[in-house]
Amino acid sequence: MEYFSGIKKITYEGPKSQNPLAFKYYNPQELVAGKTMEEHLRFSVAYWHTFTHDGSDPFGSGTMLRPWDIYKGMDRAKARVEAAFELFDKLDVPFFAFHDRDIAPEGATLKETNGNLDQIITMIKEYLKTSKVKLLWNTANMFTHPRFLHGAATACNADVFAYAAAQVKKGLETGKELGADNYVFWGGREGYVTLLNTDLKLELDNLARFFHMAVAYAKEIGFFGQFLIEPKPKEPTKHQYDFDAQTAMAFLRNYNLQDDFKMNIEANHATLAGHTFQHELRISRINGMLGSVDANQGDMLLGWDTDEFPTDLYETTLAMYEILENGGLGKGGLNFDAKPRRESFEPEDLFYAHIAGMDTFARGLKVAAKLKEDQVFENVIGKRYNSFKEGIGLAIVEGKADFHMLEAYALQNKPIVNQSGRQEQIKGILNQYLLEV
Amino acid sequence: MEYFSGIKKITYEGPKSQNPLAFKYYNPQELVAGKTMEEHLRFSVAYWHTFTHDGSDPFGSGTMLRPWDIYKGMDRAKARVEAAFELFDKLDVPFFAFHDRDIAPEGATLKETNGNLDQIITMIKEYLKTSKVKLLWNTANMFTHPRFLHGAATACNADVFAYAAAQVKKGLETGKELGADNYVFWGGREGYVTLLNTDLKLELDNLARFFHMAVAYAKEIGFFGQFLIEPKPKEPTKHQYDFDAQTAMAFLRNYNLQDDFKMNIEANHATLAGHTFQHELRISRINGMLGSVDANQGDMLLGWDTDEFPTDLYETTLAMYEILENGGLGKGGLNFDAKPRRESFEPEDLFYAHIAGMDTFARGLKVAAKLKEDQVFENVIGKRYNSFKEGIGLAIVEGKADFHMLEAYALQNKPIVNQSGRQEQIKGILNQYLLEV
Amino acid sequence: MEYFSGIKKITYEGPKSQNPLAFKYYNPQELVAGKTMEEHLRFSVAYWHTFTHDGSDPFGSGTMLRPWDIYKGMDRAKARVEAAFELFDKLDVPFFAFHDRDIAPEGATLKETNGNLDQIITMIKEYLKTSKVKLLWNTANMFTHPRFLHGAATACNADVFAYAAAQVKKGLETGKELGADNYVFWGGREGYVTLLNTDLKLELDNLARFFHMAVAYAKEIGFFGQFLIEPKPKEPTKHQYDFDAQTAMAFLRNYNLQDDFKMNIEANHATLAGHTFQHELRISRINGMLGSVDANQGDMLLGWDTDEFPTDLYETTLAMYEILENGGLGKGGLNFDAKPRRESFEPEDLFYAHIAGMDTFARGLKVAAKLKEDQVFENVIGKRYNSFKEGIGLAIVEGKADFHMLEAYALQNKPIVNQSGRQEQIKGILNQYLLEV
Amino acid sequence: MEYFSGIKKITYEGPKSQNPLAFKYYNPQELVAGKTMEEHLRFSVAYWHTFTHDGSDPFGSGTMLRPWDIYKGMDRAKARVEAAFELFDKLDVPFFAFHDRDIAPEGATLKETNGNLDQIITMIKEYLKTSKVKLLWNTANMFTHPRFLHGAATACNADVFAYAAAQVKKGLETGKELGADNYVFWGGREGYVTLLNTDLKLELDNLARFFHMAVAYAKEIGFFGQFLIEPKPKEPTKHQYDFDAQTAMAFLRNYNLQDDFKMNIEANHATLAGHTFQHELRISRINGMLGSVDANQGDMLLGWDTDEFPTDLYETTLAMYEILENGGLGKGGLNFDAKPRRESFEPEDLFYAHIAGMDTFARGLKVAAKLKEDQVFENVIGKRYNSFKEGIGLAIVEGKADFHMLEAYALQNKPIVNQSGRQEQIKGILNQYLLEV
Repeated sequence: MEYFSGIKKITYEGPKSQNPLAFKYYNPQELVAGKTMEEHLRFSVAYWHTFTHDGSDPFGSGTMLRPWDIYKGMDRAKARVEAAFELFDKLDVPFFAFHDRDIAPEGATLKETNGNLDQIITMIKEYLKTSKVKLLWNTANMFTHPRFLHGAATACNADVFAYAAAQVKKGLETGKELGADNYVFWGGREGYVTLLNTDLKLELDNLARFFHMAVAYAKEIGFFGQFLIEPKPKEPTKHQYDFDAQTAMAFLRNYNLQDDFKMNIEANHATLAGHTFQHELRISRINGMLGSVDANQGDMLLGWDTDEFPTDLYETTLAMYEILENGGLGKGGLNFDAKPRRESFEPEDLFYAHIAGMDTFARGLKVAAKLKEDQVFENVIGKRYNSFKEGIGLAIVEGKADFHMLEAYALQNKPIVNQSGRQEQIKGILNQYLLEV
Repeated sequence: MEYFSGIKKITYEGPKSQNPLAFKYYNPQELVAGKTMEEHLRFSVAYWHTFTHDGSDPFGSGTMLRPWDIYKGMDRAKARVEAAFELFDKLDVPFFAFHDRDIAPEGATLKETNGNLDQIITMIKEYLKTSKVKLLWNTANMFTHPRFLHGAATACNADVFAYAAAQVKKGLETGKELGADNYVFWGGREGYVTLLNTDLKLELDNLARFFHMAVAYAKEIGFFGQFLIEPKPKEPTKHQYDFDAQTAMAFLRNYNLQDDFKMNIEANHATLAGHTFQHELRISRINGMLGSVDANQGDMLLGWDTDEFPTDLYETTLAMYEILENGGLGKGGLNFDAKPRRESFEPEDLFYAHIAGMDTFARGLKVAAKLKEDQVFENVIGKRYNSFKEGIGLAIVEGKADFHMLEAYALQNKPIVNQSGRQEQIKGILNQYLLEV
Repeated sequence: MEYFSGIKKITYEGPKSQNPLAFKYYNPQELVAGKTMEEHLRFSVAYWHTFTHDGSDPFGSGTMLRPWDIYKGMDRAKARVEAAFELFDKLDVPFFAFHDRDIAPEGATLKETNGNLDQIITMIKEYLKTSKVKLLWNTANMFTHPRFLHGAATACNADVFAYAAAQVKKGLETGKELGADNYVFWGGREGYVTLLNTDLKLELDNLARFFHMAVAYAKEIGFFGQFLIEPKPKEPTKHQYDFDAQTAMAFLRNYNLQDDFKMNIEANHATLAGHTFQHELRISRINGMLGSVDANQGDMLLGWDTDEFPTDLYETTLAMYEILENGGLGKGGLNFDAKPRRESFEPEDLFYAHIAGMDTFARGLKVAAKLKEDQVFENVIGKRYNSFKEGIGLAIVEGKADFHMLEAYALQNKPIVNQSGRQEQIKGILNQYLLEV
Repeated sequence: MEYFSGIKKITYEGPKSQNPLAFKYYNPQELVAGKTMEEHLRFSVAYWHTFTHDGSDPFGSGTMLRPWDIYKGMDRAKARVEAAFELFDKLDVPFFAFHDRDIAPEGATLKETNGNLDQIITMIKEYLKTSKVKLLWNTANMFTHPRFLHGAATACNADVFAYAAAQVKKGLETGKELGADNYVFWGGREGYVTLLNTDLKLELDNLARFFHMAVAYAKEIGFFGQFLIEPKPKEPTKHQYDFDAQTAMAFLRNYNLQDDFKMNIEANHATLAGHTFQHELRISRINGMLGSVDANQGDMLLGWDTDEFPTDLYETTLAMYEILENGGLGKGGLNFDAKPRRESFEPEDLFYAHIAGMDTFARGLKVAAKLKEDQVFENVIGKRYNSFKEGIGLAIVEGKADFHMLEAYALQNKPIVNQSGRQEQIKGILNQYLLEV
């Protein structure tokens, strides 16, 4: 079966390429700031959007034309694996990511479901032997099935908690089996729909209990993937417990889990929480908690998770700036948690969309690297905070000042002189770098 | 000078009162759930909105007709004190709150400014001797003057940090002098306007240094007011560091300040952050951090802080429910951080607005007390989480379960049966309580 | 088959009823302002949410327990009709509403689909002979099937336009056959996903062409139901062409359709557009375009259409005030375009939810009627605009003033004196009416 | 007095310029698509933000360092004129715009105020004789003074209506005197704060009366500037009557004013209304109502009018695309209704900000021109709507189809085949044009 018959391997053909299905800016082997673009960018294809999502939305059924949909059940699951590795190869991406239920359908019982999973895991493992691609992370889908309608680890029903535990146990085993670099916890339905019927304290305590069990089990089996929490403020629930990075980090510290988890920051989740993508990356970074990235974008005028492929050069430039500042993402990657629009339903659109996303990040990387090379922001900031490097400012930073000293200083000080923040100039400079790298 | 000449003392006149300037629901001495309404509600008048704000907005200059505006400078400051105590008396409120610059104008130097403050503090102290009213909290205005354009404790200029320290030092002394129950830190311009010129880590570290100095100084002088942080997500800055309660609590724990602060939750700030008022109260409460409340409301269709007087019975009922669950607010209170609309510019409107707010909270208290008396939510929740009181659920809660036990349980378990969350029924019942208490 | 076995007819049992499945405020025969509550309120059950929706959302599959789901295909469609009339009877509602595809499934061809429809229409017609319930409106679902992915009357594909025309033709025939009072056009996917590939002018012209054809055909067959447009700003598309009432009315006037359509105002769509429910009702009313109402509510902190049952007494009071001012809704009604939460999945929840909605509107009606009886708002407004009843104001209103006259007046006039808008007092009074009717 | 001493004339110095105060992309005389950049872009400086605004916000007083602030009253007004023409010259902009109260302060009476105005108008007229700059538009500030707290033409007080009429009469005379190309009506406080005290119909009727008087007076005095309405959804009022372009156009048609007005579209107002900037431009354009543009940008995460200088290349590219499609803006222009941030308070920031805005639009123009030259969007759209150029589609467009014909067609038609919308590919192509023009 040729899943993408007619679509050739997508190779870098340089900026003059006329082939609409080829990269213009992404060249995996090109060196940027001392590493190859591939090493910097660690792109990952999301199995759910690319191979499982059918294009349905709250007002309409599926639209996606997918060659593997001529099959059903486990046959479809197998055809998806074949198609996936064909796409990974043609796009030349180094990573992929999946939920358990993306790769294999539920059976009549948990045992049967696990059996389905095992078949596909075996098949994927075989493919991994000869493919360049690796598993960035896997996770458990604990939100689609009706059993999870009140949540999973935060459900009001202990049977659901137990079921979720079994599912994550299997997920950790899967991660170990397939050599995943990370394991992700996105909250799904861990949140509340109304406070009027919710025992908030118990639900949060249970979530922490669940995480501690997961940490213990991973150690027990020797799975060394990085654990990641993916914040999101709302949707599907009215309030998701991992609202944003600060909330997730507060939770982890509250329950002494901070050493076992990092953040998986998603651009669209950031903006739904009222933050910029860069803010969520920055706040995670300065807390030593930036683990991985779900690379997509939202529509700033729409109030739901649109999961669009990232095409905004400003966003990718500032994201790559934070990632470079972080010294890279370590085990993490740039996972395209993104789907073609419901109206972009043809198989080619999967390629167009990934190429647009990869090219946009490639350009963002180069702009960010040049900004760092020229120390553009560093110079602005260095000058701006200069007063903390000497005198009273240094005393403050070194912990030698108290209110007595500071009051005495203030009482004798001359009228305060501030300096312009120069935001407009800096934005003009950013545009110049964007256009002229 | 008769500041509110013609407006009589506003006394409770029962539900049949025809006087538009009298309470219908608030009766200070009425017993509810074992305490007087006054003990439960601890209302506070905000000096800034009521005596200082002139009704200006970004598109227009002041509109408020205020009898004391025939004076200027310190004379006006003194006239405001006289009017304030007249209003406190006529409304029969037990508390008030102020920023330093609300009560006295800045002088040419910090020393002169402190001198102005001292004069007014002396005058207020004299009034407090014979008035029933007490100081709920005071705070420092570190955002209006241009020197604070880049922030105060998070400014990029060490001179500003020092000035702010001097100001808070004086504020703590003022709190001690006037017997304040609390001292509030609202972020003002502690935040950023753009990340492009911001050293986020240094600014947050400095904020923590500032708070530690404040804690130390309060201990040194024996000021025992509760320290409160008031979260707000944005405005005036693009991103305020105390975004919401979770963020503020994360910050406090990060810097080991959690034992010295509680939250001052404002309704309008909650909704600007994407949360309900009840959510911010609840999340603070279950963390033992609910300290005080800024009692106002926003307009859910407007994206800025409108600081309206609270008139929504749903909001006040659910707020009072959380406060009753908290065992009251302790040293905290219900401070009307609220202003009559710019179009409600007559002195009478100050009375109408406070009466509307106090009546709405009074009714909310009675509904909440009845809901608790009848254990309405407790019964819903008790039944809903029943599975965690026995068997596998109890094992989870008691820390006796691990992934092995839970998987074994899940594999042998019958198909999971959930129960309806009954949100619509609960909301119908809430309406019945609202209307029929 | 007993669809709701165990649930008795829901009759009005007075305010002291202890039966959780009975009304507290709605009494169909009670007289309010000269008409029965039933005549005022004209409640309608929405077939799609109540009988067809399965509780799925973008992150999860269906949860709803529905007794008729043991059947498939046309058998299920028939079981739904039986259940529907049982529910109409038990709730004692006078109206219902449906999309074509709610009542009968699509067949392999349009012809077969129409055949399916005909069978169910015949069945419904039979039920209507003996039931008190009537058809408030019907409409065509032109958004769920993938053929409509680019829209229906605004599709970029003429075949889709033709298909939609055939569907609405059948819909108008259905409306005539079943004696519908109205026919509704909700935009569905009439909008755009991106302007980059959209011929906006052609799409709007085509929409107008479509409406003109529909008007012509209704006249041809003698269908006299009122045509209604239901505005919505976004979702499923990024921009829906009927963004809000003003936009829809502008479109109608642009294309000379204003005499053939009125507005069907939905509360949740109003707030998604940045308006209050009352605003959309008012703006339609003063333009003589208020036709009908989709009675639901949204969550003001969520950015999508939540379609909750209306339980906010403020909203229903002000809605009923506008409706009373309109002299009622004429052929229109209050259609519960609302669904129990995905977590309220039991059949009882359908009853709880409708009762909550009907009770909330019943109380709103009584409060609004009392406000009107006492001329509360009328007095405020009468006094406030008094200056337009005499002198220069009267000259303005009567069209006798020009800029010369007004400048002359202004130049000699005394300094202008305004009066307070008294918003806080009015809101306090509104609360008193809400609680004490 | 040298207002901007040390800042030389800002001349185009080409892309390699190292001078931070010079253009990189804007070259007034460069030819693009057959006209000079200056002819295309028609930049205008906004007097209010640049010369009058002091940097105050709702939480702080003015910060702006402005050399002319050493003067007071009419002396300051005159100094501003001098500084303005110096800045116009150094930036080499062809237009400026002002409110009446920007250029001259209010006096004790309307007569005195008009006298102040006359002095400054005479001074400006003198400058215009020798300057290249022209007056793009003027307007009346009818929102800052407390007399306008309830609106101007929609006030509840006839004296205010009269005053506003006198002010606009003077404004039209000013426009004629100074040769303004347009006259703008931005709503200011024309809207409501609460519906509870508002006679919506009377207010809208009065607004129309006011506009008709303005049209009549302009004709009377022979002022031929284009009348423009500037939509805005909210702020300062809760609901502004000119919510968005559709609403404003609906109002104009309702009151038979559509031939006398066009739209002045502001980017930040568009996004506050839930629309893209491009949407508001497009909807105005296809209605023949695109008159002029307020060139700024908002912060998509903030809910108020931030009036930032435009620096987003996507926005300026798509705006210029619409303007090119419109055949230019005619008498209109690109007015920088934008202000440096409160933190960018130094005089240099005025230059940095305008240069950033002008450069961003210059690049946007070139990208848009190249997109049009290559017919990028035209080709996409031409192919996409092809089915309306023949057969049944052509019959629809030509008005030859009815529901009978279309149903017959649909019944015999083959299953419908749609084509992908290709949004991701198009966005990828847009990026390539942005970067490589």
